Amino acid sequence: MKMIDSLQNASVKKWKKLHTKKERDKSNTFLIEGFHLIEEAVKSETEITDIIVEQDAILPKQFNFPNVTFTYVSKQVMKAISETETPQGIAAICKKDNVEHIELTSESKLLIIDRVQDPGNVGTMIRTADAAGMDGVILGKGCADLYNSKTVRATQGSLFHLPILTSDITPWFEKIKEKQIPIYGTALVNGVPYQNVNPTKSFALIVGNEGVGVEQELLEKTDKNLYVPIYGKAESLNVSLAAGILLYYLRG
Amino acid sequence: MKMIDSLQNASVKKWKKLHTKKERDKSNTFLIEGFHLIEEAVKSETEITDIIVEQDAILPKQFNFPNVTFTYVSKQVMKAISETETPQGIAAICKKDNVEHIELTSESKLLIIDRVQDPGNVGTMIRTADAAGMDGVILGKGCADLYNSKTVRATQGSLFHLPILTSDITPWFEKIKEKQIPIYGTALVNGVPYQNVNPTKSFALIVGNEGVGVEQELLEKTDKNLYVPIYGKAESLNVSLAAGILLYYLRG
Repeated sequence: MKMIDSLQNASVKKWKKLHTKKERDKSNTFLIEGFHLIEEAVKSETEITDIIVEQDAILPKQFNFPNVTFTYVSKQVMKAISETETPQGIAAICKKDNVEHIELTSESKLLIIDRVQDPGNVGTMIRTADAAGMDGVILGKGCADLYNSKTVRATQGSLFHLPILTSDITPWFEKIKEKQIPIYGTALVNGVPYQNVNPTKSFALIVGNEGVGVEQELLEKTDKNLYVPIYGKAESLNVSLAAGILLYYLRG
Repeated sequence: MKMIDSLQNASVKKWKKLHTKKERDKSNTFLIEGFHLIEEAVKSETEITDIIVEQDAILPKQFNFPNVTFTYVSKQVMKAISETETPQGIAAICKKDNVEHIELTSESKLLIIDRVQDPGNVGTMIRTADAAGMDGVILGKGCADLYNSKTVRATQGSLFHLPILTSDITPWFEKIKEKQIPIYGTALVNGVPYQNVNPTKSFALIVGNEGVGVEQELLEKTDKNLYVPIYGKAESLNVSLAAGILLYYLRG
């Protein structure tokens, strides 16, 4: 059993650096925290390189992974590598799953996210896409990083449940159209209320940036652009709320 | 023009105390930050007792309220009274609007929130209830405080748009039933998928605590309990997502 209590330890320094996207990209790993996320990672056969346990943490009985070394650390070390205010006493380093392809069929349902910057929104939308039974999520360039700790936390483990691909969006339009999957944008201007279209066995829904929405160039290439009507005095809906309402409506 | 640069100033001390519910209740006031929220407060004729401006802040031209004194403060003072990481340079003290009654008709649509503890969730649901054209929101005991700065921020101003009443929920059931408004609970156990009911001109939807849901005693008094089906591998939806999907579905 290894026990680390120095903040100067090389592993600790390496783990701390995973707070930055640069280091996550370089090392092709990311850090997750808490029992729930680690269980989800294990269930989905994500490659875990280290499990880091605070020395006094009490592990659930079934928490036993024969192929992974547990590293014990002091409270101070856990605090340094954690990005939550009240660490749960357990963290793990996972290999990133660099999805490069989502297999499309004539029944595929996709969520496409264009430049949504808040990691909480990106994570919540991944969780909702999972719940709504989507077959994949495409994160366009300019979105919050999938492996940002806030994104990961907001997914509640859904990042391990469905293929999530980071890619330019435009090339995917052709692939989606080839399968005759309707593409719906979201737009307040020149859009129609979502109730004007019918639920359908396949679709790709694109939602966009919190301030400026979906890029105009993309909106011009969709089959139809939808909006969620505002019946009261609110100016708008939060993007993840709009996404949830539309995904559940469209899938019927 | 008053200018305050001391953290020891009595007003500054008073404003800082508004970070706590105790002081908000005692003084019957709360603090809001940023141009957007202040504009919404003014539009809704909320009583504003002070507008606090950082000395170097640039005010929009139309930002002019003849009946309210502007108090100028130093950057340091603004930082002390603000609860955001990057203060916008303007804040205001508002009188609480202690709603005691929501007028019900046979076409009323209500959202009832039972013990939802995260202020972000409570605020987001108020915003969504506003967007979905609800006639009022009832916040049961045990919810995050409506006037918590995080709740206020998440409402994006919707707290000024519709009546929001803090009350025991049970007594409202009778008033709602008198008007023949159907009451829908939300429950994974003994519930039905929401698509089993039809949209309706009036309804009261109850959503509950992030961990344990709606209190059992309330669920036994509803007309029907609904759930949002999970089609993928997610364990659940965020409560404000579920609320949004249900509110938009039920209103049709």
